[in-house]
Amino acid sequence: MPTVTFNPLGKTVQVDSGTDLLSAAQQAGVVINSPCGTKGTCGKCVVRLIDGSLESKSSSILSPVAIQQGYIQACQTSVSEASAVIEIPALAQQPAAQFADLSENAKRIDNHLFPQEWQYGPLVVRKNCHVAEPSAGDGLSDLDRLLKAVKEKFGSKEVTCGLPVIKKLADTLRAERGKISITAAVGADIQVIDISEEITANPNFGIVVDIGTTTISVLLISLIDGKIIDGQTDYNDQLACGIDIISRITYAQNEARLQELQDRVLETINRLVKKTAEKNKLKPGELFSASMAGNTTMIHLLLGLKPEYIRLAPYVPTVHNIPPLRASTIGLDIFPDAPIHFSPAIGSYVGGDITAGLFCTDLVEDTEEISVFLDIGTNGELVIGNNEFALACACSAGPAFEGGNIGCGMRATEGAIEKVRIDPTTGIADCQVIGDIEPIGICGSGMISLLAGLHQTGWLDAAGKLDRQRNSSSIEINGRQAAYTINSRQTPAQGSPIRITELEIENIIRAKAAIFAAYSLLLKQVELSHENVSKFYIAGGFGHFLVLEDAIAIGLLPDIDRHKYKYIGNSSLMGSYMMLISEDFRKRQQELARRITYLDLSMDPDYMDQYTAAMFLPHTDLSLFPSKS
Amino acid sequence: MPTVTFNPLGKTVQVDSGTDLLSAAQQAGVVINSPCGTKGTCGKCVVRLIDGSLESKSSSILSPVAIQQGYIQACQTSVSEASAVIEIPALAQQPAAQFADLSENAKRIDNHLFPQEWQYGPLVVRKNCHVAEPSAGDGLSDLDRLLKAVKEKFGSKEVTCGLPVIKKLADTLRAERGKISITAAVGADIQVIDISEEITANPNFGIVVDIGTTTISVLLISLIDGKIIDGQTDYNDQLACGIDIISRITYAQNEARLQELQDRVLETINRLVKKTAEKNKLKPGELFSASMAGNTTMIHLLLGLKPEYIRLAPYVPTVHNIPPLRASTIGLDIFPDAPIHFSPAIGSYVGGDITAGLFCTDLVEDTEEISVFLDIGTNGELVIGNNEFALACACSAGPAFEGGNIGCGMRATEGAIEKVRIDPTTGIADCQVIGDIEPIGICGSGMISLLAGLHQTGWLDAAGKLDRQRNSSSIEINGRQAAYTINSRQTPAQGSPIRITELEIENIIRAKAAIFAAYSLLLKQVELSHENVSKFYIAGGFGHFLVLEDAIAIGLLPDIDRHKYKYIGNSSLMGSYMMLISEDFRKRQQELARRITYLDLSMDPDYMDQYTAAMFLPHTDLSLFPSKS
Repeated sequence: MPTVTFNPLGKTVQVDSGTDLLSAAQQAGVVINSPCGTKGTCGKCVVRLIDGSLESKSSSILSPVAIQQGYIQACQTSVSEASAVIEIPALAQQPAAQFADLSENAKRIDNHLFPQEWQYGPLVVRKNCHVAEPSAGDGLSDLDRLLKAVKEKFGSKEVTCGLPVIKKLADTLRAERGKISITAAVGADIQVIDISEEITANPNFGIVVDIGTTTISVLLISLIDGKIIDGQTDYNDQLACGIDIISRITYAQNEARLQELQDRVLETINRLVKKTAEKNKLKPGELFSASMAGNTTMIHLLLGLKPEYIRLAPYVPTVHNIPPLRASTIGLDIFPDAPIHFSPAIGSYVGGDITAGLFCTDLVEDTEEISVFLDIGTNGELVIGNNEFALACACSAGPAFEGGNIGCGMRATEGAIEKVRIDPTTGIADCQVIGDIEPIGICGSGMISLLAGLHQTGWLDAAGKLDRQRNSSSIEINGRQAAYTINSRQTPAQGSPIRITELEIENIIRAKAAIFAAYSLLLKQVELSHENVSKFYIAGGFGHFLVLEDAIAIGLLPDIDRHKYKYIGNSSLMGSYMMLISEDFRKRQQELARRITYLDLSMDPDYMDQYTAAMFLPHTDLSLFPSKS
Repeated sequence: MPTVTFNPLGKTVQVDSGTDLLSAAQQAGVVINSPCGTKGTCGKCVVRLIDGSLESKSSSILSPVAIQQGYIQACQTSVSEASAVIEIPALAQQPAAQFADLSENAKRIDNHLFPQEWQYGPLVVRKNCHVAEPSAGDGLSDLDRLLKAVKEKFGSKEVTCGLPVIKKLADTLRAERGKISITAAVGADIQVIDISEEITANPNFGIVVDIGTTTISVLLISLIDGKIIDGQTDYNDQLACGIDIISRITYAQNEARLQELQDRVLETINRLVKKTAEKNKLKPGELFSASMAGNTTMIHLLLGLKPEYIRLAPYVPTVHNIPPLRASTIGLDIFPDAPIHFSPAIGSYVGGDITAGLFCTDLVEDTEEISVFLDIGTNGELVIGNNEFALACACSAGPAFEGGNIGCGMRATEGAIEKVRIDPTTGIADCQVIGDIEPIGICGSGMISLLAGLHQTGWLDAAGKLDRQRNSSSIEINGRQAAYTINSRQTPAQGSPIRITELEIENIIRAKAAIFAAYSLLLKQVELSHENVSKFYIAGGFGHFLVLEDAIAIGLLPDIDRHKYKYIGNSSLMGSYMMLISEDFRKRQQELARRITYLDLSMDPDYMDQYTAAMFLPHTDLSLFPSKS
């Protein structure tokens, strides 16, 4: 069997000839980025053959020179009869995980938004309970007496009990002389999911899971006092199958692929849960409840539901509101009968992450003041409303802000240019790089900063064209196209400087226009204007790096009083946390989901007008950006 | 490896030395009776070593002569290093299955007792349903539209739907343009358990299962019209682990044994279901519902619940009323999400077979007339009541009537003496044998007939002692003990004639006394006497062979107007059938179970008096048996 060695990591694996190179890498424990989902169109998985040979399909994106230098697309390559040595360029490597501290999230949310003491009602409760001892006279079975005792403890709700508890009932009741601890899921009824010996202070742990397209975060919660104990974030293993929602849906084209996506997201979640539990000296089986949120596609993939109809007109998903499910039913490795709360979705592209996230804003409060909620992640979602109405839509921004569709784009991790200052005279960029190392690429906030800087210094006009008149060593004209070199250092393996073309600049302008047009349209729908907006919440990982002035300068965000802006981090995670600990909030969330009107922008004729108007820097209507005109 | 050959079947099997002989037989496909559950006390598994050698433990029940002749107890024997040839006597062989025609059962029940048309409401319904097509405007997911359509179809009940249906929802709805067939479980709410393309006349099949200690019966029902299509009966595979409830409970002494009992009963049920389904060109997966009944111990074993506490004071079982379960949860091989109805139990020894069976009697009707219900199977259960009260108890009759505890006793199958006429002068028996062949043993009705005949001809006195004064070639006196030879032919392998000892006669008198005492006690409890009884129902397989006059002659049944007696066959099976097809009956059954008072005779001081009084033939109080005095 041939071997494949992956440098610079120096990992070698022996595989059958014919194995595709991405699988070989995976077996070697090496992750190669393939954001387009192995379609061969993104070029992010380009690696270099150093020694030996491999079988590659013809490539439409590699130049003859690059091919001659040994560059190949990993997703289009399989192992041949011979062994091979590969060099993975920095851009093709999954960046080392550097995630924001999850404990920061709680601090960003206004205290009054969290469930108050009287609203506390976790998804699962554990209580000591005294069950009457067996007696011939009362005609009651063990189960009858258990249900009676639990009903007395919990009040009027119906009480049920499944077979696993019934199986351990007789021995437990007799060994403990009826003094037991019960674990029960609280919903429309009380479901006893476990029993054990009496415990002085019943520990009660649950988890919160935010399933993002790019990253997945898990929180460990003590349900006795609602305290957030710990948390972990990792990349979604599905990244190997595509960077954004659309490429995942495309990837899930058959049963086996859908199963693979389901396995990958479950593996990520279960890994994070296990790690977090073990770090806190808990077994996953000691976690008795979970609250989950994710966009509609992520939830469909988690449950193994075909996501295809989400992107086919009329864009109707299989399910918005997931019925109550147990952990074992969905493959979540916690206590098998643990109940799972899923935050309800509103539409194909406004999912449970939004109905959870809104609980971190005044949109769920009893106020007439208008709030706007914008979640920019791999996708963008927007909600506007107050205590009387709420309107939601998705902004088809595409993955540009996460580094997608941009040759030198990357996520905001070590080596990414995150801020750029442009010399007004020379047009040369001065870059600030995450981790203060040599730059590898540029992240979303870096690109916004770059465009803002170039535009404000006059090197980029309102239409997104680079200055062809003045001379800058950073601007290269190539016929009707121009490109801007951000950093001229040759990266070791990619063989080209960090640069951005006018076409790529247009991609970013399209993304910001999509978001601003959505915002404008929602305002117009409810006959309001910028002045009426009291609060503008920005959620999602991307917002963490965003410089407000830059975002306003390119017209991504409206030119309103800066104090109205509030960054709330991973609101989906924090909202899901609230759902785990409050029955009252779970009910309010259902009401909220019902009262939000979902607007499908693709069906709205006005949207294209708003979009076209926003395709300038910052906008065609400069009166909207008084501070910039 | 040594081989073991089982004659007269001529089956040979190769096994490891050390394998116990019963397992070796099982592997060879040969069933050897072992009613006491391998305790070595019943002697029913005695076989004869013809050639080779085996390792046997010392036997307390085989005579030195029998041991010398090569007789061994199979349950106390294991295979040695050498091969062996075994001869299985007829009594040790599981008799060939000859079961009563199940279709007879329906004919025995009064027509007015079956659910009437307006009460028809099967456990599962299948209906065509028009689900609205996906539309961007209504904001409804596939699931939302399905639930809406089902709710409209079924009226006001809540509608739920599990993950398996959600998984096939998107494709089915789109392929069929919303015109689908839904399969739904009807309970407190409507649970959609399957969907498929529209079907002109939706076939809807369910099964009814009666789990007896000895036999298991299955009926195949068409739920469109409630018609009984077919049925099958077989011995409960658990028979290898003990003949009666107590020996099964003893057998289930550890996890592995309990698991074995659960596996055996499931295997029997699944085999019967498969056979019945296939005979009618159906797959088990096309059966969408089941209604089950059995005594409390059988249901505990089916669910894998430790039965131990049923026979330990204060005799409180784990569960009377099984919560709604799905087929896959209990291991029943029909449609995985098919709902199972379990008839509720009342006490440790009055199970769901009784709350089902009572629906075949006037006890559930709106009448003041007093009915008595007696189910004699391996155990005996008795209920007395009318529209105002109902009192139930178990009669610890033991397995005597099924051939247990009687050396030459056997079940009522081919070769069993079922009726005996005694020559008043000689005291010699003239036997009627099932199948008109040479007799192998004597069944319950044969023993009752024998005792009645011997008593009526004066060869047996009221205390159960054989006549020592007159001379009969059939009576053999041996010191203080006497025995009666029913048939003097030497059976080929057992080496002894068919005979019954006074001790065994006492066993039968004990059994009949237990039942009569229970009946007397229940009457006394409600301050009624024989005259008040309007109807006396006899249920269970044993009753089929029972000659009323014989049973009254020995005092097993009261001496009342013969027209009041009614044999209703397998009432548990027929009652369970009613539960499958009528929601109204399922509710009435719950009410019935609540209103029945369970009397534990072992706790009642009066019971021993009644029992002692009934230990005569027919009774100490002859005024109770006017036609016999």
